[in-house]
Amino acid sequence: MRTHPGIKVNVPFIAVDWGTTNRRAYLIEDGHIAQTERDDMGVLAVKPGEFPGHVARLRARLGNHPIVMAGMVGSNRGWLDAGYVGCPSTLEALAAKVVRPERDVAIVPGVCVDAQGRADVMRGEEVQLLGAVAAGLAPPDALLCQPGTHNKWAVMKAGAILDFATAMTGEMFALLKAHALIGSEMTGDVDAGASFREGVEASGQDDLLSALFGVRAAAVLGRRASGEAAAYVSGLLIGSDCRARIDRPGQQVHLLADGLLASLYTVAIELVGGQAVVVDSHAAFVAGITHIRNLMP
Amino acid sequence: MRTHPGIKVNVPFIAVDWGTTNRRAYLIEDGHIAQTERDDMGVLAVKPGEFPGHVARLRARLGNHPIVMAGMVGSNRGWLDAGYVGCPSTLEALAAKVVRPERDVAIVPGVCVDAQGRADVMRGEEVQLLGAVAAGLAPPDALLCQPGTHNKWAVMKAGAILDFATAMTGEMFALLKAHALIGSEMTGDVDAGASFREGVEASGQDDLLSALFGVRAAAVLGRRASGEAAAYVSGLLIGSDCRARIDRPGQQVHLLADGLLASLYTVAIELVGGQAVVVDSHAAFVAGITHIRNLMP
Repeated sequence: MRTHPGIKVNVPFIAVDWGTTNRRAYLIEDGHIAQTERDDMGVLAVKPGEFPGHVARLRARLGNHPIVMAGMVGSNRGWLDAGYVGCPSTLEALAAKVVRPERDVAIVPGVCVDAQGRADVMRGEEVQLLGAVAAGLAPPDALLCQPGTHNKWAVMKAGAILDFATAMTGEMFALLKAHALIGSEMTGDVDAGASFREGVEASGQDDLLSALFGVRAAAVLGRRASGEAAAYVSGLLIGSDCRARIDRPGQQVHLLADGLLASLYTVAIELVGGQAVVVDSHAAFVAGITHIRNLMP
Repeated sequence: MRTHPGIKVNVPFIAVDWGTTNRRAYLIEDGHIAQTERDDMGVLAVKPGEFPGHVARLRARLGNHPIVMAGMVGSNRGWLDAGYVGCPSTLEALAAKVVRPERDVAIVPGVCVDAQGRADVMRGEEVQLLGAVAAGLAPPDALLCQPGTHNKWAVMKAGAILDFATAMTGEMFALLKAHALIGSEMTGDVDAGASFREGVEASGQDDLLSALFGVRAAAVLGRRASGEAAAYVSGLLIGSDCRARIDRPGQQVHLLADGLLASLYTVAIELVGGQAVVVDSHAAFVAGITHIRNLMP
């Protein structure tokens, strides 16, 4: 960990990654996680005016410490809109722009791209991305990937977020499964097996809208076993996503993921010619938020 | 119109294009439409066992004539499963395989692709496609496009359907509008104006999953006027669809469409380098079904 003027690294604080549907809180002592908890009190479950009460209850459980938060809590649907910092963006730039809805509570801004006709936004992921590099979990020049509902791909340059793109990969899978004609075929578990790999290979045709309808046709013609279509569609979507980002053989991707998503993206990245390195996203978040805490004015 | 042994061209008959949600019936006399009607009695609105009653009521209105039907009425959810004819497929092959749920009622089979790991199906569109060529509305070697919920692109060779692909373009637009996070931004009318064209241009990045999320980012950052996003998304989807199919400059596409879809696809096809020719899809259907009627055993 780099040292900075006015360093407060030894003072305990509470870090909160407060997203749309989930919330994770950490008690950080000496730069390490002393205690952590996770619940489904995302900002959509919190009414305006209820944030101070939630914070008081967090402190009742984790200790009466200063709090630094990131994620949708800083959106116009959260506690206080923390705005966005443009790219290239750094831990210093985020720390300089924190907003404070009350004393000893800081909310980190999001990061945006808004240039050359292209617009993109993130809120929460920036702490993990910059933290991964700050903690030495990823090199200062790297391609990072954070799979999820809205998958973020970030180009890191000299430790800053130079550019990024968001793909609605996870949301699209959920939409198709719940509402599309092919949704009724999308049964079975998703894993990184043969059907998933077949989907990744099929994504190489660059014809997603037609490949998706092919799931229906394969079912009508009895060409895919029942229970294999969900994994195939997952492979199509994740394969399309990876192909749009990986542009040279052997390109390294640092994956901020664990469990199933880590294994699916590892397989897809390698099938399209890249090389995946899985990074501990909780360690990256804690490193990032601790740096921001130490850099805050 | 070609003549065939046993020609019955002068005998009036009723042709029905009976789809999932709509139904159109024609009284054909001397190869021309003497009367037509359209309603929303698609096969999903008809219970098993009700088809004979519906046909009796059609005859009460249009005359007591033989009936030839195409579309989802021949699916496993329709009156009687008429199966599929493989590609390359012709009017002769379809006529040879009609099924008869009752005397003087014939249902035309669908067409499938089932080769080299690719599966696709159509049911109803084949009559328009083959009819367009038979009527001279499109040349025997042509690329035909039938925009809709499930857009069909057919490669015609010597007047036969050599191959085809279905893209879930229309269904995807409806899914996104009704259920996606960006759905709430997708307000405003869709027309072939500047926002639609911008979407078609953006589809050239071959990064649909990210371009769709960009609609949300543009709204958050105030980069697109309210009321323009629906047209932009339409342009992204139709642009992706056309780019996957049009592989050389000046490629001609015969469009079986009218109204808004004809104008959207015409603009998109031309923006991606093709050339659109709009064909009367009703005339194509009537020509196709009349030929099938005359070729039936």
